[in-house]
Amino acid sequence: MENSIIVFRNRPSIRSYAAIAGKKESEGKMGQYFDKIEEDAFFGQKNWEQAESEMQSQTLNLALEKAGMPLKEIDCITAGDLINQCTVSTFAARGTDVPFLGMYGACSTMAETLLTAGILTDGGYCQNVAAVTSSHFSTAERQFRFPLSYGGQRTPTAQWTCTASGAVVVSAETNSPRLEGGCIGRICDLGVKDATNMGAAMSPAAADTIYRYLTGTHTTPEHYDAIITGDLGNIGSPLLIELLLKQGINISAVHRDCGAMMFDEEQQDTHAGGSGCGCSASILCAYFLPKLKDGTMKRVLFCATGALLSAMSSQQGETIPAICHLVEISGSMA
Amino acid sequence: MENSIIVFRNRPSIRSYAAIAGKKESEGKMGQYFDKIEEDAFFGQKNWEQAESEMQSQTLNLALEKAGMPLKEIDCITAGDLINQCTVSTFAARGTDVPFLGMYGACSTMAETLLTAGILTDGGYCQNVAAVTSSHFSTAERQFRFPLSYGGQRTPTAQWTCTASGAVVVSAETNSPRLEGGCIGRICDLGVKDATNMGAAMSPAAADTIYRYLTGTHTTPEHYDAIITGDLGNIGSPLLIELLLKQGINISAVHRDCGAMMFDEEQQDTHAGGSGCGCSASILCAYFLPKLKDGTMKRVLFCATGALLSAMSSQQGETIPAICHLVEISGSMA
Repeated sequence: MENSIIVFRNRPSIRSYAAIAGKKESEGKMGQYFDKIEEDAFFGQKNWEQAESEMQSQTLNLALEKAGMPLKEIDCITAGDLINQCTVSTFAARGTDVPFLGMYGACSTMAETLLTAGILTDGGYCQNVAAVTSSHFSTAERQFRFPLSYGGQRTPTAQWTCTASGAVVVSAETNSPRLEGGCIGRICDLGVKDATNMGAAMSPAAADTIYRYLTGTHTTPEHYDAIITGDLGNIGSPLLIELLLKQGINISAVHRDCGAMMFDEEQQDTHAGGSGCGCSASILCAYFLPKLKDGTMKRVLFCATGALLSAMSSQQGETIPAICHLVEISGSMA
Repeated sequence: MENSIIVFRNRPSIRSYAAIAGKKESEGKMGQYFDKIEEDAFFGQKNWEQAESEMQSQTLNLALEKAGMPLKEIDCITAGDLINQCTVSTFAARGTDVPFLGMYGACSTMAETLLTAGILTDGGYCQNVAAVTSSHFSTAERQFRFPLSYGGQRTPTAQWTCTASGAVVVSAETNSPRLEGGCIGRICDLGVKDATNMGAAMSPAAADTIYRYLTGTHTTPEHYDAIITGDLGNIGSPLLIELLLKQGINISAVHRDCGAMMFDEEQQDTHAGGSGCGCSASILCAYFLPKLKDGTMKRVLFCATGALLSAMSSQQGETIPAICHLVEISGSMA
């Protein structure tokens, strides 16, 4: 447990995965990869919160469908989201009758739930666990920022919360891709107060976790096809590179950031990139896991980052604590 | 994994525990048992959210102090609370430099974090894990209900959110009390919409989890010195007894409910009893764990219940989903 590294001795596998995204996300750079695009921001529901729950629920069902697996074979759902009291996830899981572990890691949720799913299956506590998360532009805007109809100006450092969801079914059976291990994040706060500059607030947490994992496993960036951060975006990504360079680690050749990958910022007016739990979750499931499945990639670090603020903490003048959880995933040829 | 029962093969131990409570709680039936009482509702801070963070932080530090254990020996903190985006817990853990898993289970949090701490230590992923939670009357009131200064009338079924915190240090080393296993809760929603009657909303979840655990482990209520529910209070407790009786299980001789135990409702005007993550957490740490430690009790089921609503979900007309996580704890003589 050097540097609190978690090693999965039984290397649980990823049995299935799915990603659903909204209209704007479908028009971005990742558009072609999602399993399903929903043009209706309400997902056929009465309000945005119900819409996000419906999206999350559909994503899990799609992952199960792709695996030909009935819901009753899932022993536990680990899930979370950005919305107050995580109601999006609990309401999505309400109809399932499956044991449920609610987690809160803001935009780091996909890594936190995936790591927990790995622990539950690797440790022999469960056979199959679904790790799920989502975000929705409209639920996040009204909760964390301004009413949409207010039409507030966005700052250049602001990121665009993605309407997207990702679901991964982790299984104790041998298969690929496989979860090799991971690292539980520590809370880092270097004093950033600007809630419209999440990339800057989160990059120290990403640097801390990646540094701990690389040094703890005695590996270098060259060991990995990609070191994937969650949603540092166009501002936070160079900061992460710089922070790690100061510690003698150069990840620039293999670093990919889901926030920077999601949109075409020139065409889509998304400023510093995408964000939200669903950003890294959907890109993991739509873009990276298929590459690990077909052997195009052999080994990646998935490092989703989260900014642990609330609307109230910002109003009270607090700085923004951040966290980054990490999961190592190996592909078919590893 | 019958009925999704989790069995701890290595039976991790509870190395230390602590409970801190507020003034009103000190005047209730549990007052004499808490490690520390804080008369100042602000805990020396500027606002209630900071006060609750400070209380949670002090409780963890007190548990460590009682064990003579430095913070750096803790490999992970599992924590959560009721406040939007769980900022109470993340801000409390911010200064620790300890890996952090944020969880959301509403008032079931102590059981959820304790079960997770058990999994992390039993599975060999961590040596020592701290499970922590809290609630604060004033943070909960302003977030879920009315401004305190409004002086709103409380309904007869309403419970009083406790200002209290509990922290448990779980260790992979052999000692007692020990964690024997547990059960991850399922989300139950029988259609209760009244956010001032949490006991009714949560009792079906408690019944579901207790039924699954007893049948899954082939044990009966007589096997346990106490089956402890979180905060069903005076309304939810008889409903739980009734629901289980319908399934042929009579827990009435050993059932204890932390919500019903906390206050003297006649003297303290607390209506249906106490609630909040800190209610069951502080009573577990102040009352039950010492009895397991000294051998007065041999075996208990700790079943904290949570109502998974938000202010917005109630405003949107949603019913209240609930969950109950369970941990079996054995004492010195087991």
